[in-house]
Amino acid sequence: MFAEILTIGDELLTGNTIDSNSAFIAQKLTEKGYWVRRKTTVGDDVEEIKSAVREILKRGPEVLVISGGLGPTHDDVTMLAVAEALGRRFVLCEPCLERIRDFYRRLYEEGYIDDPELNEGRKKMAYLPEGAEPLENTEGAAPGAYIEHEGVKIFVLPGMPREMKAMLEREVLPRLCEREFIQKKLLAEITDESKLAPLLIEALERFNVRIHSSPKGFGKYIGIIIFGESEEEIERAKAFLEGRGIRFEEGW
Amino acid sequence: MFAEILTIGDELLTGNTIDSNSAFIAQKLTEKGYWVRRKTTVGDDVEEIKSAVREILKRGPEVLVISGGLGPTHDDVTMLAVAEALGRRFVLCEPCLERIRDFYRRLYEEGYIDDPELNEGRKKMAYLPEGAEPLENTEGAAPGAYIEHEGVKIFVLPGMPREMKAMLEREVLPRLCEREFIQKKLLAEITDESKLAPLLIEALERFNVRIHSSPKGFGKYIGIIIFGESEEEIERAKAFLEGRGIRFEEGW
Repeated sequence: MFAEILTIGDELLTGNTIDSNSAFIAQKLTEKGYWVRRKTTVGDDVEEIKSAVREILKRGPEVLVISGGLGPTHDDVTMLAVAEALGRRFVLCEPCLERIRDFYRRLYEEGYIDDPELNEGRKKMAYLPEGAEPLENTEGAAPGAYIEHEGVKIFVLPGMPREMKAMLEREVLPRLCEREFIQKKLLAEITDESKLAPLLIEALERFNVRIHSSPKGFGKYIGIIIFGESEEEIERAKAFLEGRGIRFEEGW
Repeated sequence: MFAEILTIGDELLTGNTIDSNSAFIAQKLTEKGYWVRRKTTVGDDVEEIKSAVREILKRGPEVLVISGGLGPTHDDVTMLAVAEALGRRFVLCEPCLERIRDFYRRLYEEGYIDDPELNEGRKKMAYLPEGAEPLENTEGAAPGAYIEHEGVKIFVLPGMPREMKAMLEREVLPRLCEREFIQKKLLAEITDESKLAPLLIEALERFNVRIHSSPKGFGKYIGIIIFGESEEEIERAKAFLEGRGIRFEEGW
C-alpha cells in the first residue's frame, strides 16, 4: 500500500517557486509509515489536474494528498477539477461559507483589508466536491477537503506553506493509520560510493530492507538511508555492514 | 509544444531532500521559452522509472529532461530503466569508460580516494542506451545522455546539483531552440487577492496571455506573473490592469 502526492501551481512549473510543500508532505507521510511512490506537479489548469488525478487513482494508492490552487483567483481551480475528476457535483458548503465570511470580517476589523463583503472570488472557496468533508484552515480562508473515493483517501490542501502545514498536522495525519515502515539515516565513513556498492547489494540480498545512498562529494562520508518494516531488521542490516568494516555515524 | 521533467530518487519521496533540481531545470526551460507542463518524481526503481518515462512519451513533449540515479551504487538504475523504456539495448560507451578511468585516476592522484581502479560500480556508469550521445560531466564521473526518440529530445542528467547544473548549461540548453514565450514578474499593490480576481479575468479575455497570482500574505502586495508569446502583449495586459487602478512594481 502506498501514497501519492500531487502539487498544483504554475509557479512550480516555471521554477519561480521550489516545491518544498511536497517534501514536507512526503516527510510526514514517511514518518507515519507510508511509502510515497510518486510525486506529480501540474499547473493551474482544470484539464491537467483532472488527468493527473485520474491517472493517480488508476494506480490505486491508499492515500492521495493534493496541495495548491484553493484560493480566490481565476487560476485557483483545484477543487473544481477534483470534483470533475471524481465525477462528483461541485456544491456549496454552507458552514464553509460562514467561516469564510467570518474570516474576512475579522481581517477587515483588524485593518488588513478594506472590504469585508463576500465577493465571487471569496464565495468560490466554499464550493467542494459533493460528499467531501471540509478540513479546517486555521491559517487562511480556503477550507481543505477530505474525500473517500473508491477506497482512496483523498486530501485536498491549500498551497500556502503555513496553511498547508497546519492542515496536514491537524486534519490529515490524525485520519491516517500508524504503520510500521521506518527509516534510519546514517553517515558511512568511506572514501567513495562505488566501493560501498557491492556491500550494499549483499545487505539487500540478506535483509528485508531498502537502502538508499547519497554521495556527499568525495569527502569522508556517504549518506545512507535504510528503510525497513521493523527497526530490528534495519539494525541487523546495519550490524552486517559494520561487520564488513563500514563505520557509521547516526543522522545527517 | 511543451517540456516535461522527471526527477528520480528515493530521497525525494521520503522528503529527506527538497527537489530544487526540478525547479532549476524548469526555470531554465521557461527562460528558453518552453512551457513546462508537468513534473514527475519517482524512486530508484527500474519499473517505476520505465512506467513514468513511457507515460511521459505518450503525452508527446518536445523535450524531456530526466535527472538523478546515474551514480555507481545499486540504486542508480536510471540509464538502464531509460534504455528499457525506449526498447533500446544497454551498451558500453568506450569513450565514457576512458573518461571515468581518467576521472578516478585523477581523484586518486589528488588524494581523494584510495583506489584508482575501475570496479563494477564505476564501470556501470559507462553504459548508455544504444544510440545515445554521451553528455560531458565536468563535475563528476557519470556521463549524461542525449537521445532523440520518436521526435522527443530526451536528456538524462545526474542528480548531484553541481553536476546537473553544469551539464544543463553546457550540454542541454545549447541543443534547444530559442522560443518566444516569455514571462514578467510584478508585484501588485492591492490588499487582497479576491478583489484582483475580476480584473485578471477581464485581462485574460482581452489579451493572449496567462496570468498567475500568488498571495504574499495579507500585506500590501500580491505577486503576479504574466506569461505571453510576446513582450508587447504582456505590456498591453499590464497597461490595461494599470488603467483599472492596479499599481505595479517590477520583480519579486
